[in-house]
Formats: sequence, structure tokens, C-alpha cells
Amino acid sequence: MNTEMSQSEDGEINMAAWILGVKNLSIQPYPLPSLGPHDVKIKIKAVGICGSDVHYYKTMRCANFIANKPMVLGHECAGIIQELGTQVQSLSVGDRVALEPGISCQTCNFCKGGRYNLCRGMKFFGSASTHGSLANMVVHPANLCFKLPDNVSLEEGAMIEPLSVGVHACRRANIGPDTNVLIIGAGPIGLIVSLAARAFGSPRIVMVDVDNTRLSIAKDLGADETILVSTSIQEMEKEVVQIQIAMGCKIDVSFDCVGYNKTMSTALNATTSGGKVCLIGLAQTEMTLPLTPAAAREVDVIGIFRYRNTWPLCIELLRTGKIDIKALISHRFGFSQKELEEAFETSAQGGTAIKIMFNL
Amino acid sequence: MNTEMSQSEDGEINMAAWILGVKNLSIQPYPLPSLGPHDVKIKIKAVGICGSDVHYYKTMRCANFIANKPMVLGHECAGIIQELGTQVQSLSVGDRVALEPGISCQTCNFCKGGRYNLCRGMKFFGSASTHGSLANMVVHPANLCFKLPDNVSLEEGAMIEPLSVGVHACRRANIGPDTNVLIIGAGPIGLIVSLAARAFGSPRIVMVDVDNTRLSIAKDLGADETILVSTSIQEMEKEVVQIQIAMGCKIDVSFDCVGYNKTMSTALNATTSGGKVCLIGLAQTEMTLPLTPAAAREVDVIGIFRYRNTWPLCIELLRTGKIDIKALISHRFGFSQKELEEAFETSAQGGTAIKIMFNL
Amino acid sequence: MNTEMSQSEDGEINMAAWILGVKNLSIQPYPLPSLGPHDVKIKIKAVGICGSDVHYYKTMRCANFIANKPMVLGHECAGIIQELGTQVQSLSVGDRVALEPGISCQTCNFCKGGRYNLCRGMKFFGSASTHGSLANMVVHPANLCFKLPDNVSLEEGAMIEPLSVGVHACRRANIGPDTNVLIIGAGPIGLIVSLAARAFGSPRIVMVDVDNTRLSIAKDLGADETILVSTSIQEMEKEVVQIQIAMGCKIDVSFDCVGYNKTMSTALNATTSGGKVCLIGLAQTEMTLPLTPAAAREVDVIGIFRYRNTWPLCIELLRTGKIDIKALISHRFGFSQKELEEAFETSAQGGTAIKIMFNL
Amino acid sequence: MNTEMSQSEDGEINMAAWILGVKNLSIQPYPLPSLGPHDVKIKIKAVGICGSDVHYYKTMRCANFIANKPMVLGHECAGIIQELGTQVQSLSVGDRVALEPGISCQTCNFCKGGRYNLCRGMKFFGSASTHGSLANMVVHPANLCFKLPDNVSLEEGAMIEPLSVGVHACRRANIGPDTNVLIIGAGPIGLIVSLAARAFGSPRIVMVDVDNTRLSIAKDLGADETILVSTSIQEMEKEVVQIQIAMGCKIDVSFDCVGYNKTMSTALNATTSGGKVCLIGLAQTEMTLPLTPAAAREVDVIGIFRYRNTWPLCIELLRTGKIDIKALISHRFGFSQKELEEAFETSAQGGTAIKIMFNL
Repeated sequence: MNTEMSQSEDGEINMAAWILGVKNLSIQPYPLPSLGPHDVKIKIKAVGICGSDVHYYKTMRCANFIANKPMVLGHECAGIIQELGTQVQSLSVGDRVALEPGISCQTCNFCKGGRYNLCRGMKFFGSASTHGSLANMVVHPANLCFKLPDNVSLEEGAMIEPLSVGVHACRRANIGPDTNVLIIGAGPIGLIVSLAARAFGSPRIVMVDVDNTRLSIAKDLGADETILVSTSIQEMEKEVVQIQIAMGCKIDVSFDCVGYNKTMSTALNATTSGGKVCLIGLAQTEMTLPLTPAAAREVDVIGIFRYRNTWPLCIELLRTGKIDIKALISHRFGFSQKELEEAFETSAQGGTAIKIMFNL
Repeated sequence: MNTEMSQSEDGEINMAAWILGVKNLSIQPYPLPSLGPHDVKIKIKAVGICGSDVHYYKTMRCANFIANKPMVLGHECAGIIQELGTQVQSLSVGDRVALEPGISCQTCNFCKGGRYNLCRGMKFFGSASTHGSLANMVVHPANLCFKLPDNVSLEEGAMIEPLSVGVHACRRANIGPDTNVLIIGAGPIGLIVSLAARAFGSPRIVMVDVDNTRLSIAKDLGADETILVSTSIQEMEKEVVQIQIAMGCKIDVSFDCVGYNKTMSTALNATTSGGKVCLIGLAQTEMTLPLTPAAAREVDVIGIFRYRNTWPLCIELLRTGKIDIKALISHRFGFSQKELEEAFETSAQGGTAIKIMFNL
Repeated sequence: MNTEMSQSEDGEINMAAWILGVKNLSIQPYPLPSLGPHDVKIKIKAVGICGSDVHYYKTMRCANFIANKPMVLGHECAGIIQELGTQVQSLSVGDRVALEPGISCQTCNFCKGGRYNLCRGMKFFGSASTHGSLANMVVHPANLCFKLPDNVSLEEGAMIEPLSVGVHACRRANIGPDTNVLIIGAGPIGLIVSLAARAFGSPRIVMVDVDNTRLSIAKDLGADETILVSTSIQEMEKEVVQIQIAMGCKIDVSFDCVGYNKTMSTALNATTSGGKVCLIGLAQTEMTLPLTPAAAREVDVIGIFRYRNTWPLCIELLRTGKIDIKALISHRFGFSQKELEEAFETSAQGGTAIKIMFNL
Repeated sequence: MNTEMSQSEDGEINMAAWILGVKNLSIQPYPLPSLGPHDVKIKIKAVGICGSDVHYYKTMRCANFIANKPMVLGHECAGIIQELGTQVQSLSVGDRVALEPGISCQTCNFCKGGRYNLCRGMKFFGSASTHGSLANMVVHPANLCFKLPDNVSLEEGAMIEPLSVGVHACRRANIGPDTNVLIIGAGPIGLIVSLAARAFGSPRIVMVDVDNTRLSIAKDLGADETILVSTSIQEMEKEVVQIQIAMGCKIDVSFDCVGYNKTMSTALNATTSGGKVCLIGLAQTEMTLPLTPAAAREVDVIGIFRYRNTWPLCIELLRTGKIDIKALISHRFGFSQKELEEAFETSAQGGTAIKIMFNL
């Protein structure tokens, strides 16, 4: 390990949050890679915890990605530019920036075609086996660092990553003023989708969840109607009717932000002929669904993987106040070993936590 | 019954093929509705048997449509104009025409928006409880009767209805020269989709089926590669690899023309990230599927219901020889009680029958 | 003339505003057509004056449409249902409705394909030679009468017609939160486009005009920046730079709501590579333009003709307060001969008039 | 000049065709840039002459690009891999490849969004001030070198560049089996567009030109109908009728491959309501056009700049024989000073030359 490289300019050693094993987190030195000509070095100031971080914390894996060795976690982040690569002209030292966490190959057909989120060569902060950004300092390509306007805070900058999922989903589902939206699941992603759908012009948003506290937050954040549902599949038919009555008009697009048989079946049945169901939540790998009757009404199912080209739009939505993302930050922690563990435990337990933010 | 109306101009009584009960067909008089100002009267010359006709034959129902009383069957048809409504100017007596079988309401949001196939007020030949067109004579709106060029036969005209399903599927899945296509199921619909996909410019078409005879027909009709698969879900993973090797490049769009768990799972797994799976076959209502991993690769699922605005294109494809649909007609029958029963029995037994055609 | 038909139920004769010749308007009896089974009779309560009405007033023609004989003017209207055709179930007597003025043929390829605004058989209120709706009473198809919610007034209902032009333009230009918009011309249509673009999510709207009063209204209605420009083509290059600086970022879509060489050239030059210019204003038939350099930057030119399927969305935008259209009504007149003439003269003179509304 | 770098492996000096001034071409040494880790060195075997090369030859400029100093010409090329950069894995020495000539920045919004042809940082072979590929040897990024199948020749490989313009135009204009196409101009680009449109499924292609020889080539290459037109704008109205009669149905998309007032006016007037006019030819910078009546029929104008992501599709179209591009090569020359001058003079004089090809 090149310890020299792990030190910042003022001689301090760069520290990061490593996952060493299941529920085993440790703040340890993290030697930075060298600064390429198109890279910048960023002092990280705010990092949010994502569900995928919690998966690694609990199981050392996330979907098909397995952490075979210690890895730095984190990918929702913002910070301040410390140093510029020799060719970087678009940024200056001291700029406050939000970081897009995935480095794509730029040369495969997905990248050339503008769908770089599907690039198979993607290196993504904190996704095995690429180190993450819950660290004092990181090195990142300049073209993935987006300058924040004065009225957008670093915490909001870190929130652009989850917001991007909502924005990408709304783009893929073609949300606009003609689109009445059902959102199933009022967790962080469901709430973010509701904010994004509103910013895209959706006139009417109905949200459902099994938890009344979450629904009350959803209402506060602007949902037109909320409906408490059960986890019982037997209730589905009745609940679909309730949902359609609450909407009061056809449901053009449904977002399943949970991903269980029941949530997806509800979405398929509730959506109008010719509408779309957007599957974002990934709770179950295999699903048993009434897909055929939905297909026979030309209800299409749209998949979502991360996002592409979303940072500039998200910054504009935050700058203009079209979206107030701060309200989603429910907990804040400092960057100490004790707070690190506390933060992940809080996140792992779910409950009232929406978004947990580290301030470094 | 207004028997006067059941007579054609020359005094003969109009006869039609009625379904009276399960496996109970009878050629009986069929009084025609009166000729409205925008209608034409057509002497029917060719009628194909569709899977939905066979469903009614076997069970008196098709999906959610239940025949509670005797009904005239048939909807794939072509004939010769006998009489014009007072306002009809687009057609002449003696014109050979193919009939689009569904009469939509023209005023609902689906109709006004150009997606009239989703119209809830649709009256469709031979779909309970609207009488069909397996009859000597029918009355139909002039705007749904499309004049055939001299080099397109009446049998080909009747085949435009099933061809329309393939054309509509290719339009919805956006097939073009950039799209490599997998077709699962080499029955009538699968074969028709392959012809349509080729006409839309698809450079490479791989077809799979559980029946080697069907695959051999598929090959004759132009599939680049065919693969015999099993019905065992255990074989799926291996078969997906086989299919991908046979394609030799990414699979952009898969058409499931069967609609079982296994066929749809194969389609979801085989299709490239960012691709589409088009579900046409409706064998199972509820499906158990690896939908989540597909959605997480942005593989979208596209549903299909009948077709819209396809007759002019189909006529052009037949006229220019881009599609040779005649090869799909495997059996021909006359319009007698005996042949009627024989034709439906042949169709019900499946086997080597692709398309069975009545000549009236 | 069937005078019996020109009387309303209570025996009063139905009166309408006829154009008899150039600048020759007269309120005279207007016998209503008979009420078909799918029609309704509407007591008209609010009618706006459109630029095309003023064209007929000044010249007896509008574009290629020539009024060879006296004609009832008006097409922006709302009223109250008086009587229902025998088959009408979607409306009730007493319903307050906004009227979509064009009756399309429903059977041509444009109508079947959902682009009914391009139907060549369209019969459109007050467009030669179809009588208009500036009348006490009209008969109209029920499917073109849209019920207004309680919180949307009849005047707002009449304003849905011009609003529809803006909504259709925003749909065709695909306006959303990613689209920074330049609007050239701050007359009624330019202002309406700005309201629609905002409702569609546009984050930044810059408007230009040659008149400071109009720009001040534009600012009041929500434009982010306004720029006073000249009519001199020599100033264009400089003004384009000014406009781009005012935008502060790329201009994705420009709407030319005027239609002169200079306005369209400004739009073509100011719009970013890959963007769109939407031509709405039709001041000049033949234009001299730097089209080639724009095409070589893949700036597309999008044309607009009226609208399609806009009433439900407009009603929703008004109901939810996303758009406040009332502010555009600058003058109100009653339905007397004297006020009729005064209203058209005011409109013909332009000046500070934005939208002139009759209350009947 | 680093003369060492101008030598190929076997010690020969790398020679290239330089433009030194107006009509002043010279084959002179061309020192190659060093081979980066992701680059390959290619022995060039076939280079076509493009209209832009001829512009530089005649005027030392092409549109806004000005050659202020000597520059190597050429960009339509194919060759054989000689050497691989250290990181290149997708290609092997000896591979026959076609070269996509433009190197985009990969990090701007256009590149990230998949519209890299609009990248402002593009470095493009033989476009001032980037050296071209009419040379014995060039260095190029591996990801822009596309392996040719055995049945596609190097000359055909060089033709992929102009073919790409046609493919990109057909993609942007959404050509398919529903699209009847008018092509104005039967020069190289017009002919290529006709081949591409056919491969995209267009059922009916009508071509017009002022030269009967070209029209006869167009007919040989597969145009359904050809029409000789004049250069007189007075004849336009009559010719539009002739064209529409020759088409025999609506013209959905017109390609103007010339770019004069008359050709573009013809396209705008001939195209059906709701159709598209695609402007490819760039003869005139400023155009005087009946744009307003076209816009009022929702005829959109689509611009074209080069192409994006076209090589894989073009290779597939050549491999499968969907397009036979060889027929467009009208002249062949060797790579000597004398033949260089002769080739460019032939090209500059136009006449019967379609595509002139160097064999190196």
C-alpha cells in the first residue's frame, strides 16, 4: 500500500469506512489512487446511506455483487474540489460538487448509444469490487463532478444520487401533465418518485403503503391521496378498487417501489389499458403475476437500472425549488467509528428512518 | 326474426355458421342487419379459422368473453361488395375487399387518441356477443372494408387479420434493421410474426419451438436459425445459452407467442439489456417469472391486443410481395355442414394445421 | 329558413353574430340544425375572439379559407347543456361544458391514427364554410363537449380553445423539466405557450417581443427573463447572443409565435444543436431563412395545426391551478350589436388587448 | 517533425495526400502520432472521395471549416490492422476494418446522451484542422475500427462512411414499411438514401433529378419511379402534382439531398400532412421557402449531421446483402501523384462520377 498516497495535502491520512465482514464496519486508512489528467480530488463533505450499502452491511453482498474482500462503502456524496488533474478546465479548486458515482467505459455500444447505465464495464462507488466514497477524500473523473449552485447545499448534493433514480424512472415512464400516477411504497424511493413525478408535471399522485407513518410523510410531501393497504394478496382486488376510486380517473403509470408479488400485481391490475407499470423495487427475484391480462390490455412493464444524465436536471430542480429534497433527511451522523455503526444500525432497522446522512 | 332481411338480393336466404353449444356448430339462416348510410353489404368469399374461434367451439368462451347464446363465428374474412349504403363513396359494387372485424366507438379517449384497439365499446365479429363473418353475406362499415389490389387474392385478404397481429407487434416493439429477433413458438402467430419482422427489416431471426415439424416450416419461411427446445423449466438456462449462440449477437427483441412460464422466462433471460420482450401468446393467466432481474437490466415487457390501422400496410406488404402469406394456408374447406365440422375438428386437434381457410 | 328551428325551447329566436362582408357584422337569427341522437344543444355563455375571427372580420378570409357568403363567427366557447340527443348518456341538462370546435370525420387515416386535427373533412366552428358559435345556442356532438369542474368558470372554459394550441405545441415539442424554452412573441399565443410550457415542467423560459408592455405582462405571468428586440434583421445576430446570455444555458426548444423571417431566423440560430424550433405564428407564407446551418446542427422544425385531445388535460390544468388563464382576459363585452362591433374593432386594433371575451 | 514516427514497421516512410492550397495536392510524408494504449495502427487500403474533400480541393474550406495550413485529406476508409495499443483486446493484427472517422470527446452532454455526432470537440479525419486518412497508415482509436466479415470487401468497408449518412437519415426520419419516400437528387447521397430506405422497409420510393443519366442509375438501383424535373421554380407546382401521381399514395417522408430553394420547396409541398422533410443537401445557406403552409400541415423538417452508431448496422446490411453498395463505385484510382490529381479533377467535374475510390 502506497501510504504516501493516502495522505491529503496537509499531511493527514485519508480515512474511509470499510466493510470488513457482515456487520463489521471500520474507519481505516484508504490510500487514494493517483490523480489522472482528467480527474479531480474531492474532499467529501456529505454522504447518504443507500439500501445497497445496508445490504453489504448485512450480508456482504447486494444482488449479484459480492464483496469478497474489505471494501469502502458509500456512493451518495458531495464535496469540495481539492485538486485538479492537469487537463481539467471545467472545474476549480474550492468548487462545491455532487458526484455521479458510476464510471462507464465510454466505448461500448451502450455508452455510445447514450444508455451508459447499462454498460457492463461500469465501475461504481461502493459496488463490489470498486471502493466507495464514504471517505475523507476521493479521486473521480471531472466529467462526473457537477458544480452546485450557491443555494444548493452539499447534503442536497449528496441526495442527487437517490433523486436521480426517481428522475430516470419518470423519464422512462414519460411522466408529464397527462400522467396520473400511482406509487406503491412510501419509503425513500417511493417518496423520491413522488417528488420527481410532481416536478415532471403529474397532476395527480396516489400513494399506497402498509405503514401509516410513511403515508403521512407522503401526504406532507405532496401526494394527493394516500391509502393504507395490507400485505394480504386476498385484499388486492378490493384495494385496487379503492385505489382507482381514490385516483378518480384512469391511472396512467404505476410505480412499484417495493417489488413483491402483491405490489406488482396491484400495479398491473390498477393501471389503465395502454398504461405503464414501472418496476423499481427489487424485493423478489421471481414473481408470480397476472401479467397476461395486463399485456392483453397493452399495459407495458418498464424496468429501471440506476440512471443516466440526471445530475444537471436534478441540480436545476433543486436550484429552482421545484423539488425540496431536504425534507427526506431524517437522521444525521458524524464520521466517527461510533456514529458509523450507529448510523448503519439505524438504517438496517428501518422504522422511521428515511434518509441517513453523514457529515464529514 | 326478420326473415326478409336474411335474404340477399337474388332472394336466397343468408346462411351463417352458428355455434349453438360446445362442439355444436350449425349452418343456419342469419338475418342481416339493415344497411346504414355508411355501411356496405359484402358477399363473403374466404374466412380463416382463428384460435379464438376454436376456443368458442370447445368451450363457448374465449378469455373473459362468454357466448351465452348462439352466435355466428368467424372474423378473418374477405369478400366482394354487393351493395353500398347511401353515403358510401370510397367503394364500388364488385370491389374485392378485406374486412377489419372490429367496430370501435370512435368517440372515447382511446379512439380519439389513435389506440382504438383498446376501445371498451368495440364490437368485434364473432366475439361474444357480436355475430361473426363466417356467413354468405355481412353488413359492415365501409371504412373498415379495404379494397384489394388485383394481385392479392381473397384468401390472402382473409389472412390480413392474423397478419395484422404480427404487424402490430412489430410496430409496438419497434422492429427495424437494427433489431435481432427471437421468436418463441412456431405456430401460426409465431410464423406470422417472423414474416412481419422480416418485412420490417430485422436482419436476424431465431425461432424456437418444441415441435420439429413447426421449426422446419419456420425455416422454410425464412427464419435464420431454429432451435428445438423442451417444455422442462430445468432446461431453460442451457437453452438460453443455445439461443444466444445461435443468434450470434445480442437479442434486441423477443416475442413470446406461446405465453407459458417457461417461454416467457426464456424470453426475459435471453434478451439483451435495454431490449424488449413482447408478450403475444396468452396460454397462462398468472405467470411465475424472473421479472426483477430483467427489469434491472431495463428489459421492458410490451403487451399486444389485436391491432390498429394495419390493413393498408398489410395490403401493401402483400401487393409488393414483401410477405407471402399464402404459404400459411395448410387446409381448405367448403361451406357445408360437413366441411364446417371437419374444419373445426382439424383446427381443434392442432397437429400440422397452420391456417384453415373456408372458401364460400 | 326553418324558423321553427331557430327558436329555443322558451320560444325565443336564436341569435348569432354573422359576418356579412368586410367589417360588416350583424346579430341576426340563426336557425339551429336539428339535434342528432349523439348531439347536445348548448346555451352559449362565453365566447372569446381569436385572431382568425379578426381575419374574417377584416378580409372575409383566413389563410386559404374564404367566406363567400354570410357566416356565423366564433369558436372559443363554453356554455350550459340545454337538451340531449336520444343516445347521449355522458352529459346531463344543466352541465357546464367547454366545446371543442372541430368535428372530424372519424374514419380517415388521420382520424383513425389519432391525428384528427389533420383530417381533411374537418368541420370547424366559424371556419369557412361552417357556422361558428358566437350565438345564443348551438348544436354540437356530445363527445366534443367537456364538463367543467365547479371551480372552473365558463370564461375559463372558453379559454381552453386557445390554451389547447399551447398544450398541443408543448406536446409536439416534448416540453418537460429538461427543456429550456425561448418564446418569440408575447401576444396571446406566446403568453399561452409560456403558461403551458411551465405546466409541462420547463425550468427556464425566456420571452422576446418588440413591445415592452407585452413583455411586462409576460414577466407578470411567469417568464424568467424578457428581452426587448427590434424588427431589424441587422440586429439579429446581436440579439441572439443577448437571448443566449439571458437563458444562461442551452435553448432546447424555441417557439416562434409570430412567423416572420426575422423571428424564425432568430429561433433557428438561437436553438442548441439537437434542439427544436416550433413554428406557431403564421405571419408570412414564404420565409427566407438560414435553414441549412440549423439542419446541419440537427435543429428540427416542428409545425403545429390547432390541437388534438387537449380538453381533458386543459380542464385538469385549470382545475388544479397549474395554469391561471383568467389573467389573459383583458376585455369583456356583452352580446349586443354595439358591443359586437366595439369588441371586434378593439381586437382588430391590437394594442393592449390580449383576449376579448363575450358574455352572453 | 519526428521522422522516425513517419516510418512504418518495415522502415518505409508513411505517405499521405496533402492539400497545400487551392487545387494543389501532393503526396508527401505524414508522420504518424504515437500509438496510445487504446489505439490501433491501420494500413489503409481503400479511400473514397467525398464532396467535402472536393470542397477543400477547390476552395481550401468546407462550410465553416477552413484549412489554414496543409492538411491530409480523406475520411471514407478501410484497411488492415498493423499494430495494437497495449490495452486493445477487441481487435487483432491482420483484421480487416472499416474506420469511423470522428473522435468525439466522450464526456460532453451530447456524447453522454448518445448524440455524439453533435459533440463540439469532435476530431474528424480530414476536417480542418484534423488530418485525414488518405495515407498509407493511420492511428485511430480501436473502438472506432469495426471488423469486416469475410464477405465484405475493403472497398465496401470504405463505403460505410457515406452509407452511414443514409442510415442516420432513415433512422431520424423513422423510415419503415409504413413510409413512402420521395428522394430529391440522385447523386451519391440520394442514391445511398434510396438503398438505406429500402433496407429500412420503405415500400415505395420515387426519385427526382434534373439529369436523366442519374435517374437511370436510380432506377437500376431500385427506385420504383423516377421523374425528370427542371431547375425552374415556375415548374414546381406542376412537378409536385407529377410526383404525387407517380407515388400513387401519400408521400410520408421526403429527403432533399440537394438543398436548393426549389428542391426544398418541392419537398415541403409534396409531403403529406403530418409527414417529414429531411434536409440532407446543403447547397444553399439561406433558403426562401413556403415553410408556413407546411408547418400548418404539421410537416416537420428534420436536420442531419453525419451519423452516429451506424457502422455495426451498415456492416450487417452489407454482410446480409440487404444493401449492395459496390454498384456506386464508378471510378478507381491508385495512390500516385498523377492518379491523385486525376481522381480529384474527375470528382470536381461531377458528370457521371458517383463514387471515386482509391486503392492503396
